[in-house]
Amino acid sequence: MAKTNPGNFFEDFSVGQVLEHATPRTITEGDRAAYGALYPTRFAIPSSAVFAASVGLDPAPVEDLVAFHVAFGKTVPDVSLNAVANLGYAECRFHRPVVPGDTLRTRSEVIGLKQNSNGRTGVVWVRSTATNQRDEVVLDWARWVMVHKRDHDAPAPETVVPQLADAVAAQDLVVPAGLDLTAYDFAAAGEPHRFDDYEVGERIDHVDGVTITDAEHMLATRLWQNTAKVHFSTEARPDSRRLVYGGHVISLARALSFNGLANAQLLAAINAGAHAAPAYAGDTVYAWSEVLDKAETSAPGVGALRLRLVATKGRDESMTLRGEDGKYAPGVLLDLDLWAYVPR
Amino acid sequence: MAKTNPGNFFEDFSVGQVLEHATPRTITEGDRAAYGALYPTRFAIPSSAVFAASVGLDPAPVEDLVAFHVAFGKTVPDVSLNAVANLGYAECRFHRPVVPGDTLRTRSEVIGLKQNSNGRTGVVWVRSTATNQRDEVVLDWARWVMVHKRDHDAPAPETVVPQLADAVAAQDLVVPAGLDLTAYDFAAAGEPHRFDDYEVGERIDHVDGVTITDAEHMLATRLWQNTAKVHFSTEARPDSRRLVYGGHVISLARALSFNGLANAQLLAAINAGAHAAPAYAGDTVYAWSEVLDKAETSAPGVGALRLRLVATKGRDESMTLRGEDGKYAPGVLLDLDLWAYVPR
Amino acid sequence: MAKTNPGNFFEDFSVGQVLEHATPRTITEGDRAAYGALYPTRFAIPSSAVFAASVGLDPAPVEDLVAFHVAFGKTVPDVSLNAVANLGYAECRFHRPVVPGDTLRTRSEVIGLKQNSNGRTGVVWVRSTATNQRDEVVLDWARWVMVHKRDHDAPAPETVVPQLADAVAAQDLVVPAGLDLTAYDFAAAGEPHRFDDYEVGERIDHVDGVTITDAEHMLATRLWQNTAKVHFSTEARPDSRRLVYGGHVISLARALSFNGLANAQLLAAINAGAHAAPAYAGDTVYAWSEVLDKAETSAPGVGALRLRLVATKGRDESMTLRGEDGKYAPGVLLDLDLWAYVPR
Repeated sequence: MAKTNPGNFFEDFSVGQVLEHATPRTITEGDRAAYGALYPTRFAIPSSAVFAASVGLDPAPVEDLVAFHVAFGKTVPDVSLNAVANLGYAECRFHRPVVPGDTLRTRSEVIGLKQNSNGRTGVVWVRSTATNQRDEVVLDWARWVMVHKRDHDAPAPETVVPQLADAVAAQDLVVPAGLDLTAYDFAAAGEPHRFDDYEVGERIDHVDGVTITDAEHMLATRLWQNTAKVHFSTEARPDSRRLVYGGHVISLARALSFNGLANAQLLAAINAGAHAAPAYAGDTVYAWSEVLDKAETSAPGVGALRLRLVATKGRDESMTLRGEDGKYAPGVLLDLDLWAYVPR
Repeated sequence: MAKTNPGNFFEDFSVGQVLEHATPRTITEGDRAAYGALYPTRFAIPSSAVFAASVGLDPAPVEDLVAFHVAFGKTVPDVSLNAVANLGYAECRFHRPVVPGDTLRTRSEVIGLKQNSNGRTGVVWVRSTATNQRDEVVLDWARWVMVHKRDHDAPAPETVVPQLADAVAAQDLVVPAGLDLTAYDFAAAGEPHRFDDYEVGERIDHVDGVTITDAEHMLATRLWQNTAKVHFSTEARPDSRRLVYGGHVISLARALSFNGLANAQLLAAINAGAHAAPAYAGDTVYAWSEVLDKAETSAPGVGALRLRLVATKGRDESMTLRGEDGKYAPGVLLDLDLWAYVPR
Repeated sequence: MAKTNPGNFFEDFSVGQVLEHATPRTITEGDRAAYGALYPTRFAIPSSAVFAASVGLDPAPVEDLVAFHVAFGKTVPDVSLNAVANLGYAECRFHRPVVPGDTLRTRSEVIGLKQNSNGRTGVVWVRSTATNQRDEVVLDWARWVMVHKRDHDAPAPETVVPQLADAVAAQDLVVPAGLDLTAYDFAAAGEPHRFDDYEVGERIDHVDGVTITDAEHMLATRLWQNTAKVHFSTEARPDSRRLVYGGHVISLARALSFNGLANAQLLAAINAGAHAAPAYAGDTVYAWSEVLDKAETSAPGVGALRLRLVATKGRDESMTLRGEDGKYAPGVLLDLDLWAYVPR
């Protein structure tokens, strides 16, 4: 019998099933440096131990997306190795910052199944939870993927489609313990804009662009122990091009958003995400944001912005999300809906 | 007189000579992260401080190959700067894990010399020993290289050819102090296979492939302070291609072997290694393994597998090592013979 | 109003103005590893905690250029985002080594202004000072850049041209507290050459070459949070080529200078620097040095060499700096004038 992991096929999943994902991973200062080399991030909290301590976070957490990518990467061998498509995610909440020395592991529960009418594939919904070495929840999220059936004649399971919120409600956001933005140093953070300066409906062109290289997206994806072979091998796809991990585009866009959202430093939630088009080496990625909503929190000096973060191939100064046909505009790579904390 | 290092030529070596290699190097958490970005490694012990502690290793060691590459890289300026070819290595034993904070230095003793009949080159055998800041042996190995003579008229030295074992005997393996695999968490490690599940003669196709980029192999080789210029400069070779450091292929193959050998986490020895063909950027590297031998150890829950680890350019599902002519099959890049520990 | 940073234009600067640059940045062991992967550095002090302690530096500092690049990168968004050209720097002194855990921030004072006769651009001189989390000065330097005017009709400011020294005087060098090179381990450091072995006027061909890749120079430049878009985007310049950050060439040349200057481990000052030609991916960078001056210091066993460090595209064994027309020879990329400490 083969000793290698064949991944799970649609008929291997059942509602209520719990998957304990390998491999636990300890976050280190090395990850912080690697992240800073891979993405043009300049957010002051993960960049500076002094700044982080000044807002009540000591030791300084790493970028929230480090935790997201590591936790997400764990699920790939069990959930999406045989995926036809990653269809979406929702209800992702960041429960506490991750600091060097934390060891993350991820567990998923199957919360929905629906066989497609073609009988060859099906959609699997899972809710995944990443915990640290003290079994505290670090983040959790729901995700659904379309997966191949191994045997097209296998019977269809009962259809269960979970109800998922369009967005995490503001009152369900979990502000990091101790976070206090009342003495926030705007000069050190790089921009003067605070909660009241952002208006719902406002769009911000983040201006800068980064051209992707194969070496960089592979270094990043490997760092998160994401094993999907389409990212690493020119022999895994008919066009001989390595597909850029969607999370790489998320991190690029997030880092580019510093220019205009330098104070939206901490992620609170990811409400939804769509990868509208694939990205490849040679693409130059730009980003723009739209303020979707605003909310106060009970933490001192802390507000929350709901933001649409859009990554595009080539700069679109018109910041057009969709064409008249309702489809994503041609250059759109990513449409991400998130909550971030900002100083009030 | 030139102040740069011309390297040693064949007539600069004498049997019994001891070479103290520069530069000592401290291993850090940064090296662990860099290794994880460069290679698709997911072995649980170097990945997770929690997992490592659960098997008696606290703090968590870095990948054994980090120590190997660093220790090996030290020898290049003195031993192989003027090498025509790296002919082989043998009797490499890992004596103790390396943890962040350890400072490695390497010393070599010349143990053999044989001038070639052409009078222009000769073979040099050295035994190298890497020690940590407490002067404890971390690893040692023998290696032989073909080196240019500076002066073709220099007299040939007395021929001394050392006896080297085909493989490290199982009873000579040095199990890391404190290693205890009796409570091994197979779910966290990623695979259920244990010592008894592997049979001598069994072959495992590790399935996944990685396409090499120039940036990545240079980053890796530089990290080990390996200075051989053929790896870094398009002007160092007539074909203007950078030659990939053989150790890069070793680490790629080793990391790919996770898929099927996830529990063979710790290297015990490298018995022999041959780089059957050069590798270049653009090559897609795959790996397969053959179980050559099995041995028990006196440590709790710890067995040892002797494995042939083969890296190929392009996937060879037939796992053919040699053609009918006895030569390596066309795609074979690396033929490595090693011992690794596995849970019983 | 746009929330993104438009950068400062010539008329935004006034003599005496102080700019507090974002973002503070904590140096970590991850930066040390990343630096070692990006540059072929083998200097023993930043490489080995044991070696560093043996010369009185405990904990081991990172490469001095890490501090330089981080501190310099901070000034880009405020000083040179709209620069036409980086014209030069001077009087850069390294006041104390940087160790992991140090958080750097940079402040600049405008010390000179001169509008160009075309009325469209002007030259801005700033003196920048980087401090650590204890408000101790880490390094300071002067720099002048040519910057666009926003409004060509804006009145010219009073011309103020600061007096800057051609070189830092030897007696103004600040030897790191505790540095003692009397028990220096030349074997571990890699070369036997000491202060007395170097003669003024001597030139050293550092022999080795490194071919630049886009991925590597972007990783490096990003690590220093340098945001100049010409380094990252193929769409930022008419020729679709990413311009290599000048500091990347400095670090390449400095690392290559190990071969012949292995004991010139610590930078004391940068007296002047000119980037004679742009560098791009595919260029193979070599380096040579000229000893310009020598000086004793009051620290035990510590001398100082003033060195011209020249980076070239392609190797120039003739080590020609300028042609008969007085202009830089065609292959010259960098002409850097520095002071470094060496054992006596």
